[in-house]
Amino acid sequence: MEQAESRPPGRIAIIGLGLIGGSLGLAIKAARLENLEVVGYDREWGVGPKAQRLGAIDRAARDARSAARDAALVIIATPVLAIRQVMEEVAPVLREGCVVTDTGSTKAEVLRWSGEVLPQHVDFVGGHPMAGKEQSGIQAADARLFADAPYCVVPHVNASERAINAVLSLVRIVGARPVFIDAEEHDSYVAAVSHLPLVLSVALFSLAHNSQAWPDMAELTSSGFRDLTRLASGDPNMSHDICITNRERILHWLDRMISELARYRELIQDKDEELFKALARTQLDRDTFLAKPPARRQPPAEEADILSSGERMASFLVGEQWVRRVRDMSRTLEGRGKEREREGRRRRRPQR
Amino acid sequence: MEQAESRPPGRIAIIGLGLIGGSLGLAIKAARLENLEVVGYDREWGVGPKAQRLGAIDRAARDARSAARDAALVIIATPVLAIRQVMEEVAPVLREGCVVTDTGSTKAEVLRWSGEVLPQHVDFVGGHPMAGKEQSGIQAADARLFADAPYCVVPHVNASERAINAVLSLVRIVGARPVFIDAEEHDSYVAAVSHLPLVLSVALFSLAHNSQAWPDMAELTSSGFRDLTRLASGDPNMSHDICITNRERILHWLDRMISELARYRELIQDKDEELFKALARTQLDRDTFLAKPPARRQPPAEEADILSSGERMASFLVGEQWVRRVRDMSRTLEGRGKEREREGRRRRRPQR
Repeated sequence: MEQAESRPPGRIAIIGLGLIGGSLGLAIKAARLENLEVVGYDREWGVGPKAQRLGAIDRAARDARSAARDAALVIIATPVLAIRQVMEEVAPVLREGCVVTDTGSTKAEVLRWSGEVLPQHVDFVGGHPMAGKEQSGIQAADARLFADAPYCVVPHVNASERAINAVLSLVRIVGARPVFIDAEEHDSYVAAVSHLPLVLSVALFSLAHNSQAWPDMAELTSSGFRDLTRLASGDPNMSHDICITNRERILHWLDRMISELARYRELIQDKDEELFKALARTQLDRDTFLAKPPARRQPPAEEADILSSGERMASFLVGEQWVRRVRDMSRTLEGRGKEREREGRRRRRPQR
Repeated sequence: MEQAESRPPGRIAIIGLGLIGGSLGLAIKAARLENLEVVGYDREWGVGPKAQRLGAIDRAARDARSAARDAALVIIATPVLAIRQVMEEVAPVLREGCVVTDTGSTKAEVLRWSGEVLPQHVDFVGGHPMAGKEQSGIQAADARLFADAPYCVVPHVNASERAINAVLSLVRIVGARPVFIDAEEHDSYVAAVSHLPLVLSVALFSLAHNSQAWPDMAELTSSGFRDLTRLASGDPNMSHDICITNRERILHWLDRMISELARYRELIQDKDEELFKALARTQLDRDTFLAKPPARRQPPAEEADILSSGERMASFLVGEQWVRRVRDMSRTLEGRGKEREREGRRRRRPQR
């Protein structure tokens, strides 16, 4: 134990301490890993010290570069368009074997930037936690934000197994469910189930709000309207960057949505029976989807599993020696380990 | 007190014991009014007795007609298209001075039917509680469903002040906030803030679900997708009837929504700056809307106010003698009463 304490702490750097970065910090700190220092930086004045007061980081750095220096894992949690710039800023100081990940809502562009900007001696494994809420900023951060949420893991083609495992441990430590996916698929799917809903939400609110009758209509709004327009309260920087970096796929789904609305327009206009069937069918399909949510297809992460991910992260952080020790220990738990690996690899495919 | 107990109980009939009818029953019963019997009927087998077991009604009637017989207040809480039929069924047995109300999601058609079907000696005051959830049926009923919700009150042009006050008391007893509005306005506004969101929700879910990539996309869905598609799990009978009875207005808003989406399509395609401004503006507008929701423009109903509404309802139920007594009592509370009246009448207008 004394040996362990005499080791220099492993460092995780979080660049960008908004809702996502701050929540990751809180969730990592809640795991109480030993020999770990979480250093954070946010370009907005006062956010770093605030994150430290809230317990999301151990120490606020004065710039991205000093946060990333000597870090074993660098998490870039800024809006997508800022990621490239952060990569450029930290690239010169990243140490050998450093693992870089991000939390951006689109992945193809980010993967491309990582190849262009980051040095050969670091690994990039993209990430995208599918969680959020309409409030933004460190004050909205929540250690439980990622509980049971899908967390996309998108390794660069050159990323090492060790780097992938490090990000996988991060995902499990914060309570999320890793989904291995390639960047193109990711961007195409989230365009449908995340970015299209965002645009719908914004458009519905602006349509109603810009109507002359809004003051009267507003009085009649209920939970349905509030739920449907919730995403319109999201951070406009983030939404904007999503639209810019996933433009073509969002336009594709927007066109399909307009066609779908035109189809419902026809049903409502003069096809009563078909309209009823479509409504009943959709209700059934959605209830089936809810009754068997994808999260439930995999067994929930057990306490033991979370602890074990914590050990893996710790081992990654404090160096190869401990890696070997943990490897020896984990042989005794091999059965469970294999199960976990099968689950983790289930959807892993080669990345371009 | 003995005199009060010797009076025959006043009767409220609820026809249709689904989510709305059942919740109204629970909320009315929770007010513990004296001398009140709540009788219910649902055409689905077993629902009446179940509602009785759950405490939503005192007694299940064997048909709509026997529920409505001798009732002082008849609440029709069926899907919209069934309302006319229920009116026809109960019309022959409604007693002199009976007040009939409904909870239908559209009002113009319902008001027209009431003029055609109900006898001259009863009053019709349409109602529409702007509350709900995606589950339907008596098992989803909840006494707090209407708490702080807007409740549209749409009196027929011939409805008496007494009838309007009875429905107003009902609204307050169940914890809702009355909004006086005419039928055409109501249907036009809810087409925008309630029915359009419903169609969007259904269309978004069916679009995603019918996509070939759905099994993979489903794994990436998060709270945003679930919130945006929530209304797609609503009762298809209800949704269908809404579309049929408010067809033109829904089509109007659907067309406007398609145009709005086309506008966002342009912004996303090649107007980055304008897109950002639109996103930021919408976020600001929505946050302003949330910070000052219409419900907060009026002071929340106080305990005393609820009790007083309960007294009003009771007075309505047990006859003119008590009405006068309560009127005398309430003079001592005149200041508060006037305030309440101003608030209640603020948006009342003549009905066609």
